[in-house]
Amino acid sequence: LTNLLPAKNGEEPTMQFLLEVVDILTNYVRKTFDRSTKVLDFHHPHQLLEGMEGFNLELSEQPESLEQILVDCRDTLKYGVRTGHPRFFNQLSSGLDIIGLAGEWLTSTANTNMFTYEIAPVFVLMEQLTLKKMREIIGWPNGEGDGIFSPGGAISNMYSVMVARYKYFPEAKTKGMSAVPRLVLFTSEHSHYSIKKSGAALGFGVENVILLKSDERCVKCAGRGLENTLQSLGYVPLFVNATAGTTVYGAFDPIDEIADLCEKYNMWLHVDGAWGGGLLMSRKHRHKLSGIERANSVTWNPHKMMGVPLQCSAILVREKGLLQGCNQMCAGYLFQPDKQYDVTYDTGDKAIQCGRHVDIFKFWLMWKAKGTIGFEQHINKCLELSEYLYNKIKDREGFEMVFRGEPQHTNVCFWYVPPSLRGMPDCEERRERLHKVAPKIKAMMMESGTTMVGYQPQGDKVNFFRMVISNQAATKSDIDFLIEEIERLGQDL
Amino acid sequence: LTNLLPAKNGEEPTMQFLLEVVDILTNYVRKTFDRSTKVLDFHHPHQLLEGMEGFNLELSEQPESLEQILVDCRDTLKYGVRTGHPRFFNQLSSGLDIIGLAGEWLTSTANTNMFTYEIAPVFVLMEQLTLKKMREIIGWPNGEGDGIFSPGGAISNMYSVMVARYKYFPEAKTKGMSAVPRLVLFTSEHSHYSIKKSGAALGFGVENVILLKSDERCVKCAGRGLENTLQSLGYVPLFVNATAGTTVYGAFDPIDEIADLCEKYNMWLHVDGAWGGGLLMSRKHRHKLSGIERANSVTWNPHKMMGVPLQCSAILVREKGLLQGCNQMCAGYLFQPDKQYDVTYDTGDKAIQCGRHVDIFKFWLMWKAKGTIGFEQHINKCLELSEYLYNKIKDREGFEMVFRGEPQHTNVCFWYVPPSLRGMPDCEERRERLHKVAPKIKAMMMESGTTMVGYQPQGDKVNFFRMVISNQAATKSDIDFLIEEIERLGQDL
Repeated sequence: LTNLLPAKNGEEPTMQFLLEVVDILTNYVRKTFDRSTKVLDFHHPHQLLEGMEGFNLELSEQPESLEQILVDCRDTLKYGVRTGHPRFFNQLSSGLDIIGLAGEWLTSTANTNMFTYEIAPVFVLMEQLTLKKMREIIGWPNGEGDGIFSPGGAISNMYSVMVARYKYFPEAKTKGMSAVPRLVLFTSEHSHYSIKKSGAALGFGVENVILLKSDERCVKCAGRGLENTLQSLGYVPLFVNATAGTTVYGAFDPIDEIADLCEKYNMWLHVDGAWGGGLLMSRKHRHKLSGIERANSVTWNPHKMMGVPLQCSAILVREKGLLQGCNQMCAGYLFQPDKQYDVTYDTGDKAIQCGRHVDIFKFWLMWKAKGTIGFEQHINKCLELSEYLYNKIKDREGFEMVFRGEPQHTNVCFWYVPPSLRGMPDCEERRERLHKVAPKIKAMMMESGTTMVGYQPQGDKVNFFRMVISNQAATKSDIDFLIEEIERLGQDL
Repeated sequence: LTNLLPAKNGEEPTMQFLLEVVDILTNYVRKTFDRSTKVLDFHHPHQLLEGMEGFNLELSEQPESLEQILVDCRDTLKYGVRTGHPRFFNQLSSGLDIIGLAGEWLTSTANTNMFTYEIAPVFVLMEQLTLKKMREIIGWPNGEGDGIFSPGGAISNMYSVMVARYKYFPEAKTKGMSAVPRLVLFTSEHSHYSIKKSGAALGFGVENVILLKSDERCVKCAGRGLENTLQSLGYVPLFVNATAGTTVYGAFDPIDEIADLCEKYNMWLHVDGAWGGGLLMSRKHRHKLSGIERANSVTWNPHKMMGVPLQCSAILVREKGLLQGCNQMCAGYLFQPDKQYDVTYDTGDKAIQCGRHVDIFKFWLMWKAKGTIGFEQHINKCLELSEYLYNKIKDREGFEMVFRGEPQHTNVCFWYVPPSLRGMPDCEERRERLHKVAPKIKAMMMESGTTMVGYQPQGDKVNFFRMVISNQAATKSDIDFLIEEIERLGQDL
C-alpha cells in the first residue's frame, strides 16, 4: 500500500491501481444497463455481517493488501443494489446518468469545499449561475433572488422554515422561540415528513405543524382546509408548504389558490418541489406548478426527477439577503473581509453547514451535455411511461387503482389482488389479506432480484404498490415486465 | 450525446467517454503530487464569468458535444484549487488519499442512499460497524451507543444539541421551545461557530449560547469560566460543548474538568472533535482528549485530520435510542415495518435528513487499506511536521508566535513581520500595518500559485497566519518552502 502516491515513485502503482478500480466500475456500469443482470443479490444483514466468502466487513489494526482492496470494491458492488438498472423503480431517485457520473468522479478528484470562492472558484460560480437559471425557470423576475445547494430535500425544506421565521421574526435568531408568539406551520397530510421534522428541530414543535386534510390528488382541498383552519386559530400563522408532487401519490397542491391565502393572511409560501420541481423543465407539464412564481421559497431536487446523481438539492429564495441574514455568524477564519477578490462570492455564511460538499458540478455538466431541452425530453418520456402503465393496468384483471384519473406525476399507485381474493367482498378479512400481498410480492422480487418497486399503506388504505419512474433507462418493455412479474409472483397468494 | 448508455449500442461510446474522463482525472492526480505544478491558477470572479478561452460557464437550451464536455472537465480542474497538493495548507481538510478517492468513485457509481438497508445493504452495515469502532476508540463500554454520518461537522454539532434537548425536555419535540424553560448552551469563545448556528436554528437564540472566555490554549479556562457563569445564571443550563481541537489555535478544552461540572449540574456534555477527534487514533496524542469517554456525544470528522475525502463527519451518541426518538416521524412509504429483513437496520428515521449521501464507503475502504495503525502513523507524522515548523520559526527573525508553547494540534499560528516593521514599537500604526501583511502575502501567494495558507484576526489580535497540516503528501521540505515563500513575498511590505 505504501507504494501509492504520495510515496516516492508512487505514480506508476497509483495509476495502475486507479485503472483497476475503473475497470471494476465500468464493468458495473455496463452490467447495470444489461437487463439480464439482476437488480440485486439479496442477503439478510446477519448473512453479510457473518461475512461472505472473501468479503469481511470488520475493520482491523493492520493494513490489507491492494489486491484485497480491489476484491472489497468488487464485493461491495456485488452485494449492493443497482439503482441505475432499468427495472429499479424503488425510489424517487433512480437511474445512472453517465455524464452525471463523470461529473461526480471529477468532483471527488477535486475534493474541495463550497464555503469560499478561494478554494472552489469554478464551482461557486457554477452554483451561482445554475441557481439563477433555476429561478428564471421558476419565473421570478430576471431570475433575481438567492439560494444554495443543500444536502437533500429535507434540509432544503428546513431552510425554508428558518428563512420564513427570520423574515417575520428576526429576533428568533438572537432570543429564541420563547421570545416570539406561538407560530404555526401548515402543510398537507400528504406532504413530506421533513416539514414535521423541521418543526420539531427548529423549536416550533410538531403540534404546531398543522396537517391539512387532502384527498389523493390534493386538488382544492389544501386551500379550503387551510382557510377553515386559519379562521379558527388563535396563533400566528407563519408558513404554508404547498407540495408540488407528493411522495406517494405524486399530487400537486393548488399553488395559486394557496398563494392567495398567503397574501391575505401575510404568510410565507414555500413550494416543496423536491419531487415535482423537475416538471418545470417541461413545457407540457409545468402548468401543474402554476403559481410557483408567487412562492417565497422553493425546494427543487435535481437528484430526483432530473436524474442527477445523489445528492443534488436546491433551496431557492425569492428575497435576497435573507439566507445570509438568517444564518451568518461571520467567522473570521473563513470569511475574511480583506481578501483580494470580491468576497460577496463566498457562500459559506448563508449555510447552516460550514464545510459543504460540491453538489453542483455533476448537475452543471449534465445541463451542458443535455441542454435545457434534454431535461425536458427526459421528463416528458418518464411521464409518458407512467401514462402507459396507468392505461395498461387501470382496467386489468387483478389490478385496482388507489385513485382514479391519470397520474399527475409519474406516481402510479395500485393494488395487485391475487386470484384468491378477487371474488371476495370488501371486508376486514379481505383487507387484512390484501395488506400482506404487496410485502410478500416485494420480498419475492428482492429475493429473485428481478425488479424493485415500493409499497406502503396510507391512512386507511392497506399496503399498495407505488410505482415511480425517473430512470432514463426504463422503457415500455420494463413496465410490461414489472406487471408480469407482479402477476407471476402474486398469483398463488 | 444520445449515443451514451442507455442508448442502444451505447456501451462502446460510454466506455470510451468514461476512459477519457479518467484520463483527465488521473493526469490531474499525477500533477497534484508534483511540486512543480502550481497549487492554483488564480482568476477573479469576473474573469471566469466573462469566460476563458473555450470555457463558458453559461447554460443553454441546446446540448453540447461530448468533446466540449471533456474540455469543460479539463478546464474546471485547470481553474480550480489543488487541495491535494503538498503545499496546500489552507484548510483543515487537505490531501488527496488515493484509496479514499477510489472509494468516492465507487460511491458515485453505486449512486444510492443511506435511508434503508433495502437499497444500501452493504453501506448501512459498514456504517454501523465503523461507528461502533469509533465508539470503542472513544472509550464507551463495548462500543455501545448510537451515531450517524452527517453532511459535516456543523450538522453533527446541531444533532448533539437536538439530542440533548430531547433527552432533558422531550416535550420540545411536540410542543416547541415555548413549552420548555429558557435553556442555555455553553461553549468557549474559541469554539466553532456552528454551536451558535445551532442555537439560532434550533430556536434557543444566539443570546442563549454563552461563550466562555478562554485563552489561546483553552487550558483550565473553560472550566472555571463555566462554573462562575453557572452560579450567576437563572436559566436552565442544558448543554456544554467542549472543543477538542479549536479551529484557529488547535487547542483542547479540559474535558475531564468540564465533565465534572456537567455531572454536578446535570448537563449534557458534547465534545466537538471535528478537528481533533482524529488524534484518538494515536496512542501518543490521544491523551489530549482524555475524559472524552465521559461525553454524552461526540462530533468527529474523518474528513479533516484523517485525510478522508469530503464529506465524512460522524455524530456519536452514548445513549442508544435518543437519535431515533428525537427525529423519528415514521414515514410509512420508507420505513415499512413488514419488510422481509430486520428493519432495525434502517437508519433513516434517526436522521434530520431523508435521503442521505453515502459517506461511509471511502472511510471504510481507507481503514481497510491503512489499518488502524495507518491512521496512527498519519496523525503522528502531521504532528511531527507541525512541531518541526514551530521549532523552525519560534525564534526566527521576522516571525512572532501568536501563542507560546508547542502546538497541541497541528495548528501553528504566527505573524510574519516584514523588515520595515521590525524595529517599530508596539503601537496603533504598527498594528494597522501588521494587520495588512498577511492578506497581502496571501494574495501574492494565490496569484503566484505557489502555496496556500490561511490567515485571520482573532479577538484583539491582528491578522496572523494559521498553519494547519493534515495532508499526507506534505514533508519538511514543503514547510521550508512555505517559510521561504512568506519571507520572499513579504520582505518588501
